[in-house]
Amino acid sequence: VTSDGTRLGRVADETRSEEGPAAVVERCIQALRGARDLAAAVASDLVGVGISSPGPVDPFRGIVVDPPNLGAAFHDVALAPLVGDALGLPAALDRDTNVAALGEWTFGVARGCSDFLYVTVSTGIGGAVVSGGRLLRGPDGTAGELGHTTVDLDGPVCGCGARGHLEAISSGRALARDARAAVDDGRSPFLSARAAQRPDVDARAVADGEAAGDETCRDLMVEARRAFAAAVVSWVDLFDPELIVVGGSIAEHQGDRLLDPARAAVERHAFRAPASRVRIVTPGLGPDVSLAGAHPLVMSRLHGPVSETVGTALVGHSVPA
Amino acid sequence: VTSDGTRLGRVADETRSEEGPAAVVERCIQALRGARDLAAAVASDLVGVGISSPGPVDPFRGIVVDPPNLGAAFHDVALAPLVGDALGLPAALDRDTNVAALGEWTFGVARGCSDFLYVTVSTGIGGAVVSGGRLLRGPDGTAGELGHTTVDLDGPVCGCGARGHLEAISSGRALARDARAAVDDGRSPFLSARAAQRPDVDARAVADGEAAGDETCRDLMVEARRAFAAAVVSWVDLFDPELIVVGGSIAEHQGDRLLDPARAAVERHAFRAPASRVRIVTPGLGPDVSLAGAHPLVMSRLHGPVSETVGTALVGHSVPA
Repeated sequence: VTSDGTRLGRVADETRSEEGPAAVVERCIQALRGARDLAAAVASDLVGVGISSPGPVDPFRGIVVDPPNLGAAFHDVALAPLVGDALGLPAALDRDTNVAALGEWTFGVARGCSDFLYVTVSTGIGGAVVSGGRLLRGPDGTAGELGHTTVDLDGPVCGCGARGHLEAISSGRALARDARAAVDDGRSPFLSARAAQRPDVDARAVADGEAAGDETCRDLMVEARRAFAAAVVSWVDLFDPELIVVGGSIAEHQGDRLLDPARAAVERHAFRAPASRVRIVTPGLGPDVSLAGAHPLVMSRLHGPVSETVGTALVGHSVPA
Repeated sequence: VTSDGTRLGRVADETRSEEGPAAVVERCIQALRGARDLAAAVASDLVGVGISSPGPVDPFRGIVVDPPNLGAAFHDVALAPLVGDALGLPAALDRDTNVAALGEWTFGVARGCSDFLYVTVSTGIGGAVVSGGRLLRGPDGTAGELGHTTVDLDGPVCGCGARGHLEAISSGRALARDARAAVDDGRSPFLSARAAQRPDVDARAVADGEAAGDETCRDLMVEARRAFAAAVVSWVDLFDPELIVVGGSIAEHQGDRLLDPARAAVERHAFRAPASRVRIVTPGLGPDVSLAGAHPLVMSRLHGPVSETVGTALVGHSVPA
């Protein structure tokens, strides 16, 4: 990826985490070597490798800590040092949502913003926070987990163990859980019919059921949107952002059906000044947002924190004296 | 207040907001003149006036926007410019919780921290966030409102209009509301007896009732602490703070009864790394924390943002070249 976001080489492969961390790391290295070959003309100008990983990660040491989606074997895997050594380049690693936020900040809808949130509503709900022109990290690098906001004290238990987190209500995994329960209870004719055709019902089935007029599906989607809207109001009061970028497969599929209730709730309930200011939008970049974000990630690691000056100016950054 | 936190003069007066903004502003000016007279020996060295106000405020223009507790007449009162002109000194104004956080950061328990939260659990629930060595402000200066986090989608309506905010469940105002309802319903022998003696029952009465073994009072206090604990877990996941300082009259009175359930919930449910790191503590400074915070507030306005270097070093700050 060059400083204007152009991709010179792209190699994709499956993670196949069931093969264990060593195989996954080796596959990353092979993919990167392949991408370098595709960009052979500029290979000698490459300055670093940027890595986007499911969280939690330790971005300061480049370690994948123990992402629930990669299985128990993925525990404290030093992905960035291993990849960096193999490629002979400095490697920077961060949580996927932070990298995506950097991508949108540098090349997408958040260009020029000093205060914005990036949220993904997908299988899980992830987030990243830019405030005062800086990505919030915290001393462990785990800050910005917007999905783990309690919105319902007595709500369902989240993957993290807490009760009523946004992710436990509005995520794809939560909707799939509720869909299975509805099938078990025979509460949803639509989902029962779908379950008879396919081995599993998922969040998409619930959305399809709502579109088809199924009442249980509609109730589930309404509740997911209501919880999301309440969380968005909390974030507006908490961060006073100019922009909230909402990505992820569910947000992409639902579009304004998800965003409009959040916009209305903010207008009604958030503090006046931030409510007038904030815009709630879909992402500017597509599924390769993490590739775009790899550029500012590497540049910030080499040349100091990404700041208001992020963008094409970054390329001209020199190491501060 | 000098750079080591010493108070050279202190004049206190009631706000008496019912007399209207002009009278309140005039009373502030008189109090400040009185304080200046008490510090006559150093009056010529005074560099500015720091003002702590209930929110919402516009800290950039020094305006008190429309704090609900000061009545409807307090709307866009330009307190800092008016006071500054009268005193012939630059005047900086911020939300009370931000000023208190600056006080604890410079002179109290948060010295040396780069990431901490300051929360007040009192009549309302207020907050301030320091992340990466900077006070979060947002473009409107309203960031950090920790009390307006939704914790219960179907909970009681908050003063701000939203449903189930932490402030609507765990604040003094919320407990007083529930206490009045319990008296009306005759659900609490303790509160009914208290109401027969005094015109109004308040949060303190509920705490006293719990101590006396009244079941309704105990349930209300348990719920208030449970909601607070859930919010604290969300904040730990969201900000990865080193420290959470919990002040305010209710926190002061409850002490570890309020903090222990939050500590336990964080240990059980927050992400591993921030859960191991964070400490949840009571404030280091007393009720004059805002006086202490006035010093870094003024210095940061004169010499650029307060940062990791805050502390006695601030006094030696020169205007950046």
